[in-house]
Formats: sequence, C-alpha cells, structure tokens
Amino acid sequence: MGNWFFESHKGFKYGYKINKVLYDKKSKFQRVRIAQTESHGRIMILDDIVMLTERFEFIYHEMMAHIPLFIHPGAENVLIIGGGDGGTLREVLKHRSVENVDMVEIDEKVLESSRIYLQSISSQFHNKRANIIVGDGIEFVKNKKEVYDIIMLDSSDPVGPAEGLFTAEFFCNCYRILKKDGIFIGQSESPFYLKEYFKNFYKRLKRIFPLTRPALTCIPDYPLSFWSFLYASKKYDPVKHFVKKRYRESRIKTQYYNEDIHLATFSMPNFAKDLLK
Amino acid sequence: MGNWFFESHKGFKYGYKINKVLYDKKSKFQRVRIAQTESHGRIMILDDIVMLTERFEFIYHEMMAHIPLFIHPGAENVLIIGGGDGGTLREVLKHRSVENVDMVEIDEKVLESSRIYLQSISSQFHNKRANIIVGDGIEFVKNKKEVYDIIMLDSSDPVGPAEGLFTAEFFCNCYRILKKDGIFIGQSESPFYLKEYFKNFYKRLKRIFPLTRPALTCIPDYPLSFWSFLYASKKYDPVKHFVKKRYRESRIKTQYYNEDIHLATFSMPNFAKDLLK
Repeated sequence: MGNWFFESHKGFKYGYKINKVLYDKKSKFQRVRIAQTESHGRIMILDDIVMLTERFEFIYHEMMAHIPLFIHPGAENVLIIGGGDGGTLREVLKHRSVENVDMVEIDEKVLESSRIYLQSISSQFHNKRANIIVGDGIEFVKNKKEVYDIIMLDSSDPVGPAEGLFTAEFFCNCYRILKKDGIFIGQSESPFYLKEYFKNFYKRLKRIFPLTRPALTCIPDYPLSFWSFLYASKKYDPVKHFVKKRYRESRIKTQYYNEDIHLATFSMPNFAKDLLK
Repeated sequence: MGNWFFESHKGFKYGYKINKVLYDKKSKFQRVRIAQTESHGRIMILDDIVMLTERFEFIYHEMMAHIPLFIHPGAENVLIIGGGDGGTLREVLKHRSVENVDMVEIDEKVLESSRIYLQSISSQFHNKRANIIVGDGIEFVKNKKEVYDIIMLDSSDPVGPAEGLFTAEFFCNCYRILKKDGIFIGQSESPFYLKEYFKNFYKRLKRIFPLTRPALTCIPDYPLSFWSFLYASKKYDPVKHFVKKRYRESRIKTQYYNEDIHLATFSMPNFAKDLLK
C-alpha cells in the first residue's frame, strides 16, 4: 500500500496517508483491509474502495438507522442486509422499541476485521438483541415471511458481491417480508457517481412501494460526496408523518442526525430532481 | 503539473487528471492556474488549492447569490468582495431588481484567466449592470457610505491575500455600508476544515449584526466537502422571512438552489451546532 492509499476513479482520485495496515485478507468475495490513517482514523477498504472512515462513518450510519426508526411508531423487528462493520446495528440498537435485529452479512472477513479493529463501530455485535447471520441477503429474503417492521439495505456498490441487491426481484421480496406498515431504506449511490444505479433503484422501488422518496446527504468518504438513500414505505411518509419532538424526547445521542436534518435531507436540489423525472 | 494535480492536506489529498494546462501565471498575490481535467471540466487553482471546477461551481455560486437575493424584497445595489471568476456575478444578475453590482477583485490575473478560459463562468463581465473594480476589498469598504442592499464575501481561504477579510474591522465596515435592511453573506470555510475560522467568523459577525445564521452545504470541490456560508442581516431572518413562491415566480433557472434547498441549508447537524455553541 506504500505510505498512501489512493481510491481511483475515472479522472480523479482520493489519497489517504497510511500509518499502518492492520488487516489485509482476501475473502471469497473481496479483499478486505483495515488501515490506520493520519487524518481519518481507521478506514475499511473493500477491494480498492473506501467503505468507511472512523472520522465520518457516523453520518452514513445515523441516516440509515434513524430516518426510518423515527418515522415508524414502534419498530420491533429490523433486518439489516449487509452492514457487516456494525455501524448501522449500533445506531438501530439505540432505539428501545427494537427487540430483534437480524443482520445478514455475506462476508465473514468484514465481520472479523471490524470486530477486531473497529471496535467503536462493531460495539453491539454481542448485544442480546442482535442476531448476526453470515449469509447471502438475496437468499435470506426469499425464504422469509412477513415479519419485519424495517429493512435496511446497507450494502457496498452494486458491482461485485452486492450486485443482486439492486434488482426488482430482491425489492419484491423485501416488500413481501415487511409488515403492513413496513419501511425500506437503502443506500443508493449518488446523483453524480454511479448515477444510473441511483435512477434505476428509484424507479424499481417506485413500481413496488406505494411511497418512495429520495434523501440526499453529504458523505465525505464517498466519491464526489453527494450520497443518496432511498426511503420506501407501505404507509408512512417520511416528512408528513414525522413527529419532530420524538427525537428530543428519545434522548438518543447522535452527531449528525436531528429533527431538522431529518426533514432537510428530503429536499432535492434541481439537478437531482431532474435526474429522477 | 505532470498528468495529475494533487491538492494536498494534512493526511489526505485530492487528485485530478490534467489533460492540458491552459493558464499559469504568477500574480502579485498568488499563482493562478487554469487546467483542463478529464472529469471536472476546467478548474481554477490558486496557489495549490482548487478554487472551482466547471463541473460543480454552480453549487457554491448559486448558494452565495440566491440565498440573500430571495430574502431581500428588492435588492438594487450589490457588492461582491472577491469573486473574480465571475460565477457569483453571473447568478446575481439573474435577478431583475438588481441595478448595479460592484465587484472588487484584488487579483487581475484571476479576472484575466477566467475571462479567457472560463467563459461559462465569466459570462457577465460585460453586463452593463456590472462594475468590476480591481482593488483591495478591505480598503474599498473603508471608504464607502451606506449604499448596499447586499454584500457577498466571495473570497479564497483566510490565508494569503484574503486574510484581512475575516477581521472584526472588515465586518464592521460591511455593516456600516449596508442599508438599514441590508444582508451580508460570506463563504466561511467548513466545520471540519479550518473549523476555527468558521467558529471565529460566526462569533465576530454575531457581535456586529442583530441576526447571524450559518448555512451548510455539500461542495465536492472543497476539502472534506461540508462547506459553510454565514448569513448576517440587519432585519431579515433567512427562514422566517422567506417566501417560498418567490423562487418559482421569478422563473430564474438554477441547477442546485430552489425553495426547499434554501430552507434545508439552514438546518445544522449536531456536530456543527456543538461547534458554534
């Protein structure tokens, strides 16, 4: 890795000064690395893409977990597809209503590396309410019944092991195993980077769920920083059904998310609106 | 410059693949470069920092111009300090109420390079309502009377030629030359990058203006992407006094800004709130 790791894209790249490589193994699916950087704490790299940095991971994980959990009036049973670092799980378990979280991660090396080297992120792996399954999310949703209040798709980019997670069939199964007022949320790439995926993901969800809305935020760890989530629901509108005081009353501690950010994130700039027309 | 230009920070860097260097001159103040990149269109580099890219400049310039102009009920006389590339000027002149814009840029090489190589940005240099002054913004505000509806501080980072633009004395002069319902807006660095400047800038403005509010947005061209503006005003609150329908009725075309983004940008994540406490 030399002294610098570069995440390379067509025409641009991001460099991190590496003080030490802590973990470097090839799994069945990908190369998994954890490195200590000078400026961003420890970072996880899958193949040659930065999945998270300790410095900024809170933004992504808080948005993924708290947006649906502060909409749903009392989610008990949550499914996380992917999310093997544990950041989304950590945020979900801040909600006392949640009785069980199934987390289905395909790559045990992701779990292992995070368990050993990213302990502030994987801190809830041993929580009694967490049920960690090493397996394929696509197969998992095929064989389930209607049991979940919320499904979170916390996957890597739709190339490599995560490819099948962005198909109509997968979304249909998610719809089927969600309860009558269930909510789906997924990371959906960016209106600038892999924007065709963002667009297609939106269109597919829209065909399946009665309500689909994009959310946009700034995640400095990801290429070109603008990053999207897609929220889809059988019942609850993420803006109309949002009760602002619930966040404060919950006393849940967050660094990024709050009641104002929840609402702001559903405001789309014109270029993103145009893309989804 | 080789095939790649790197903007280097402590522990991290951003690289752009350069197809051609179009302009490279040393002015009295700084090195001014324009280069053709593979992924971001043309970019302007002052010393070793990217000031703008053709790909994303619209975000910064639209926010700087339209936030105050859609609050003020009928701004006629606007002052831009810096802004020598012309992007803010271009956006300001989309508002028909504006009769005159004084733009005070210290570095004529910035004007020259943009005039020749960034024509989509410098497109309004010859507009009859634009009055371009090559000079020092600090001196300019000292010698003016109370004439402006809006002042925009469109400067580079507060190191080098822009240093004196972040002082209490400069802000006091801005206050003095604004009319009774005048508005000030300035780029104010980032809650992550040069965050002490963001904090101090906020505190200084707050001591001078009756109303000061931070706005936060995502600008992929700038380090760590989160970027702030400070809005300060003698009268108008940027949220309470905002009339949503004004944007649509204006028929002004924008790629980023709209009525929802205007309001969303004043929502602060917790980490930014904590910083400004």
